[in-house]
Amino acid sequence: MTDPADAPQRPRIKLKPKANARALRHGFPWVYSNELVTDRRTRKLEPGTLAVLEDEAQRPLGLVAVNPDSKIIARMLDRDADAEIDQSWFETRIARALALRSQLYDAPFYRLVHAESDGLPGVIIDRFNAACVVQPNAAWADAHIHALCDALAKVTGCATILKNASGRTRGLEGLDDVDQVMCGAAPTAPVPVAMNGATYMADLTGGQKTGLFFDQRENHAFAARLVAPGARVLDVFSHVGGFGLAMLAAGAGEATCVDGSAAALELAQMGADAGGFGDRLTTRQGDAFDVLTALGAEGAQFDVVICDPPAFAPSKPALEAGLRAYERVAKLAAPLVAPGGYLGLCSCSHAAELTKFRNASARGIGRAGRRAQLLHTGYAGPDHPQMPQLAESGYLKAVFFRLD
Amino acid sequence: MTDPADAPQRPRIKLKPKANARALRHGFPWVYSNELVTDRRTRKLEPGTLAVLEDEAQRPLGLVAVNPDSKIIARMLDRDADAEIDQSWFETRIARALALRSQLYDAPFYRLVHAESDGLPGVIIDRFNAACVVQPNAAWADAHIHALCDALAKVTGCATILKNASGRTRGLEGLDDVDQVMCGAAPTAPVPVAMNGATYMADLTGGQKTGLFFDQRENHAFAARLVAPGARVLDVFSHVGGFGLAMLAAGAGEATCVDGSAAALELAQMGADAGGFGDRLTTRQGDAFDVLTALGAEGAQFDVVICDPPAFAPSKPALEAGLRAYERVAKLAAPLVAPGGYLGLCSCSHAAELTKFRNASARGIGRAGRRAQLLHTGYAGPDHPQMPQLAESGYLKAVFFRLD
Repeated sequence: MTDPADAPQRPRIKLKPKANARALRHGFPWVYSNELVTDRRTRKLEPGTLAVLEDEAQRPLGLVAVNPDSKIIARMLDRDADAEIDQSWFETRIARALALRSQLYDAPFYRLVHAESDGLPGVIIDRFNAACVVQPNAAWADAHIHALCDALAKVTGCATILKNASGRTRGLEGLDDVDQVMCGAAPTAPVPVAMNGATYMADLTGGQKTGLFFDQRENHAFAARLVAPGARVLDVFSHVGGFGLAMLAAGAGEATCVDGSAAALELAQMGADAGGFGDRLTTRQGDAFDVLTALGAEGAQFDVVICDPPAFAPSKPALEAGLRAYERVAKLAAPLVAPGGYLGLCSCSHAAELTKFRNASARGIGRAGRRAQLLHTGYAGPDHPQMPQLAESGYLKAVFFRLD
Repeated sequence: MTDPADAPQRPRIKLKPKANARALRHGFPWVYSNELVTDRRTRKLEPGTLAVLEDEAQRPLGLVAVNPDSKIIARMLDRDADAEIDQSWFETRIARALALRSQLYDAPFYRLVHAESDGLPGVIIDRFNAACVVQPNAAWADAHIHALCDALAKVTGCATILKNASGRTRGLEGLDDVDQVMCGAAPTAPVPVAMNGATYMADLTGGQKTGLFFDQRENHAFAARLVAPGARVLDVFSHVGGFGLAMLAAGAGEATCVDGSAAALELAQMGADAGGFGDRLTTRQGDAFDVLTALGAEGAQFDVVICDPPAFAPSKPALEAGLRAYERVAKLAAPLVAPGGYLGLCSCSHAAELTKFRNASARGIGRAGRRAQLLHTGYAGPDHPQMPQLAESGYLKAVFFRLD
């Protein structure tokens, strides 16, 4: 512990007696607003202000970033209350994150930093070889963006660093939505990304999120295992072809990708062309529910069907409606699965935990008159680590069934 | 529906009005004893008797196997109440099970039949190329063992079929514990099994269960991904070296396997020798808790530590004690993990569901003074399918952490 006399002059904020200081000491990263003494001075702190968090006996618990407007009023940055948040601090955390990904992956394409669980609350960094896309979704990170990006360039050697400001929580943090090139030059064409034998085209500046969803990589790989040579496969809510291209690379005879975004489907086609199986891909733009219904009316049959919809239950109030939507997806998709074929259903809803989502899926399959075996349950890949204390909130689940 | 007049003369048993006939119609496979009208006639049925299950209005729900001594008093065999349980019936179900495994695996080593979820209640069949080990853990299956084995030989072409009668539930079903060679000749030496680049030695007649635990294959593969060249790894409760040999095959410099069984460790050494890395394996026979404690006292450090204990919480009454045992394993294992290294913890306890097991593990790690990221959660492989209606009971979980 540094002598308090040496500490920078930072605001000090104090936990209420009822707050769970023990959990914070054991690594829980958040303080809820009802756990903090919020006097007028605290309420006036700018989002992102660094402060020393103290327990009720005024013992320092660590250095936090404060946001008086958020239900999560403080996020732990460092258990050393006197830590300097400078380039070297970022370098240490990014190097630790990089060591994990370098162990896990042969090529430098992955989620490099996954927020709290990599020690950088609210910060998402996806890496595409020599380019990184940073989402500083918290005010403290936005305020330190230059130290962060300098550290990132130094640790990874990446020449291009892009700031993506599309994160939904930025508004709550008082932040703008202006993207920025932090270093190097933004790529003028989609970046090819090799995963599971397929090539994906990532649009790092105009695409959804950071350009590609790395989180589904392991589930793409499982879907590919279900593909017999020549199989007909369907990828609904396909984005740039995540499941569809992996299944084509695994030997599918024909793949149909369905998405609402024409731009995403164009990238899917580019990826299929790059993989040498462009002629085996069909894209179908439109509302996924409409297309599923139409395919059912056509009597279409596929050997593998995957549905990876957007979050239908992003929050607790949306849970019931969300689960009904997941059930409806399952009910519309099941009739499209040939006898003995496979159905993979995904949810990226925090609020819909695994059991509820699996049951909604099984109910939909049952209502379509089909019986199912559950083969596999998958989550986000290991480049999306979780804090054990927050693991309940693991957002991504994929359940794979074989239908009779 | 066949005309009831043509039906074989089978006993008829009747659900109480409060029973969930709807769930049974939708695929739930069990009738609990408190759901059935158990008159004197029903109570007198021999375990394994085939009977027609009727709802309260005497409409047939299907053909069941009855065991009046069991809390699960009836298990659904076929929704056609008039089905003949003959060789051809077994052939259909085994062929369906085989189609899934043939799709999933390059080589014929897998769990071929996983009981209820493959339509054969209480029947486990593991395949080792041209040999199958059958566990008929239910009286109905024991009574039909010859039709079952003839069907198995015909569908798979396997020359050797062994009956393993060590299943714990056989006693409850009024069955003996006498192993038997049903067909062909029992192998006189351990059978080499290639998985994840390693060679395992399976003792089909004298080993635990059917000789090998196929269920951990995917988790072995994940552990192998955590191995840097030359890494020091520890496999506690190793059996024949499941995790240890996969990690050696992935490039570990030295592996230590710990198990209570000298015979299992001998097979681990044979497997390591067969893989060409016998000189990099150390085996340590003894009580795992004692060995973990001793390694801690020695200050031993490993880059990857895996603990795959037997079921500490096999039933609900054993849950609290079981969770304490899992916490203790984590607390003893965490100090053995080098900084930045990995810890994989497994549970094969039905009663300890994922959240409880993960929390016990995280608590143990915390009590050892270590911080952790949760990287991956794995289950039994897809050759161990589940019925969606019974998925809560998925017994095997593996959680992989990186420690600071």
